[in-house]
Amino acid sequence: MVGMKTALVTGGAGFIGSHLCERLLAEGYRVIAIDNLYTGSRENIAPLAQNGGFTFIEADVCDLDSGRFLVPGHIDEIYNLACPASPVHYQAAPLKTALTSAKGALFALELARTSGAKLLHASTSEIYGDPIEHPQRETHWGNVNTIGVRSCYDEGKRFAETLASDYRRTLGVDVRMARIFNTYGPRMDAQDGRVVSNFIVQALRGNDLTIYGDGSQTRSFQYCTDLVEAMRRYMALEKPALDGFFASHGLGACVLNIGNPAEYTVKELAKKVLKMLPSSSSRLVARPLPGDDPRKRRPDITLARELLGWEPRVQLDEGLAKTIEYFRGRV
Amino acid sequence: MVGMKTALVTGGAGFIGSHLCERLLAEGYRVIAIDNLYTGSRENIAPLAQNGGFTFIEADVCDLDSGRFLVPGHIDEIYNLACPASPVHYQAAPLKTALTSAKGALFALELARTSGAKLLHASTSEIYGDPIEHPQRETHWGNVNTIGVRSCYDEGKRFAETLASDYRRTLGVDVRMARIFNTYGPRMDAQDGRVVSNFIVQALRGNDLTIYGDGSQTRSFQYCTDLVEAMRRYMALEKPALDGFFASHGLGACVLNIGNPAEYTVKELAKKVLKMLPSSSSRLVARPLPGDDPRKRRPDITLARELLGWEPRVQLDEGLAKTIEYFRGRV
Repeated sequence: MVGMKTALVTGGAGFIGSHLCERLLAEGYRVIAIDNLYTGSRENIAPLAQNGGFTFIEADVCDLDSGRFLVPGHIDEIYNLACPASPVHYQAAPLKTALTSAKGALFALELARTSGAKLLHASTSEIYGDPIEHPQRETHWGNVNTIGVRSCYDEGKRFAETLASDYRRTLGVDVRMARIFNTYGPRMDAQDGRVVSNFIVQALRGNDLTIYGDGSQTRSFQYCTDLVEAMRRYMALEKPALDGFFASHGLGACVLNIGNPAEYTVKELAKKVLKMLPSSSSRLVARPLPGDDPRKRRPDITLARELLGWEPRVQLDEGLAKTIEYFRGRV
Repeated sequence: MVGMKTALVTGGAGFIGSHLCERLLAEGYRVIAIDNLYTGSRENIAPLAQNGGFTFIEADVCDLDSGRFLVPGHIDEIYNLACPASPVHYQAAPLKTALTSAKGALFALELARTSGAKLLHASTSEIYGDPIEHPQRETHWGNVNTIGVRSCYDEGKRFAETLASDYRRTLGVDVRMARIFNTYGPRMDAQDGRVVSNFIVQALRGNDLTIYGDGSQTRSFQYCTDLVEAMRRYMALEKPALDGFFASHGLGACVLNIGNPAEYTVKELAKKVLKMLPSSSSRLVARPLPGDDPRKRRPDITLARELLGWEPRVQLDEGLAKTIEYFRGRV
């Protein structure tokens, strides 16, 4: 075990968390995953449990006290991914969502402060709300309703960014933030109402594909392994290099867009899914647009390209095929 | 004591809190003030302590657990005013500020939920940040940097609005929010760096008046008793009336601008103060503009006029004279 690094992943049994844990284990990390299984699942991490370096703690980050949280040995890296992230989930439990974002960030920040670990905090493109600038650069301040039905997530995540910035600025905590744009892939929750899983599951079941509004709203879709690759490269960088890079781009903290800039309308996505499932009897049906739905969202990833030497590799057709394959065995 | 109403005021020893407590006592309320005296002071409430209906609890709202907070008898009204509110104070303790805003709001909301009290939460014009719309209506979503030096306050207060909205929407808590614009008057902290107290104290001391930037940024100045009058009228309204009013104006929660729409440049204010203190030897000097300083800020108070039948009564000359009088005995 000498030289083995330890990573702690909050939300480690979630869609993205489980892919990250898998990658870390493959790289030889000892991995501790924390998850309350509110949106994560044991199924997501079942294959990982075979690995002796993997520990799962079923716990809610809101209940954890960093001062009393002890793991054997030193923690090298913390990934804070715990938070319901789909409108269906977070609007079902808005207070819980807002508090998980805030308390989870505090837990991770305090643990990073006391343990000296590097911290990667998962922020989100939702902090841009219904953006005024398109595509969105990290310098965009966003356009978010504080009192709407999406605010629990958007403002909860904005508040977490503020906490992280101040922990970094005033306490020197080595925290970097990834503003993660729409991500899809195997292990998405079939029920969480996100557009990719929704369309695939509907098509596989032969149900009509529901389009909210006229379907002209655009989204960009990032395949999960592209995101994990970016997170790993981001975490590998050292604090002084990050400090210099972000300061030179006029940013008061380390915030980096991670997403796929290829932009599709929701209607295009629906048609693509149907084309890949030619035997499906599904058609497109329109439903009213929900409250505060962003009209378009697309990352400017200039900074990620420059800082990480990274860009998305998995194109939508390839990623959709893998995701369809995953859901095919499950619906 | 039969028929006597009880009000709880967090931040009750602060500038605005003490004026509110004074008014409530004058109306015959029993008043419980909570304050950690971080920016409030015993001096502010010394005159109130003569009143048998006044109780002061020196405590930090971050440390209070609503489930264990017991006051004798029923609480009718809660005013949540606890939070450092001037850049000098909140930037000296950014994490404390962000957490006070969040935890203080949670304490007040939980106490309102369990006690059935009405709650007036003090929000702020800072949630508009450097506004894109001018003057600002309540429907403006704001323009706030999540990672800047002012974020601890701005995002902390935005997050509190989100919590309040969700407590109201999902738990039926009778919470109303006032977005309070720049307010001044006696009992402002001479050291807190706000422009009105700064100029008056500098002029009284014969020091030069510091203008940040070129002084063309505008502010609107509300006298403290106008604010207290609006808060009392707002609190007097019942939940169904509020629900109907705000819904009919396209607002998902009760958020009301309370401020004085008369707009002055910072330079105009400085000249006015010097004119009122003709014996002062002070001149104007320029200093660099601090980070994320809003260029202009002015409330649209159409909704407050309509809902409360209220508008500011105290003009700037009158309010400044009273404030100068207050500071004259203290510097």
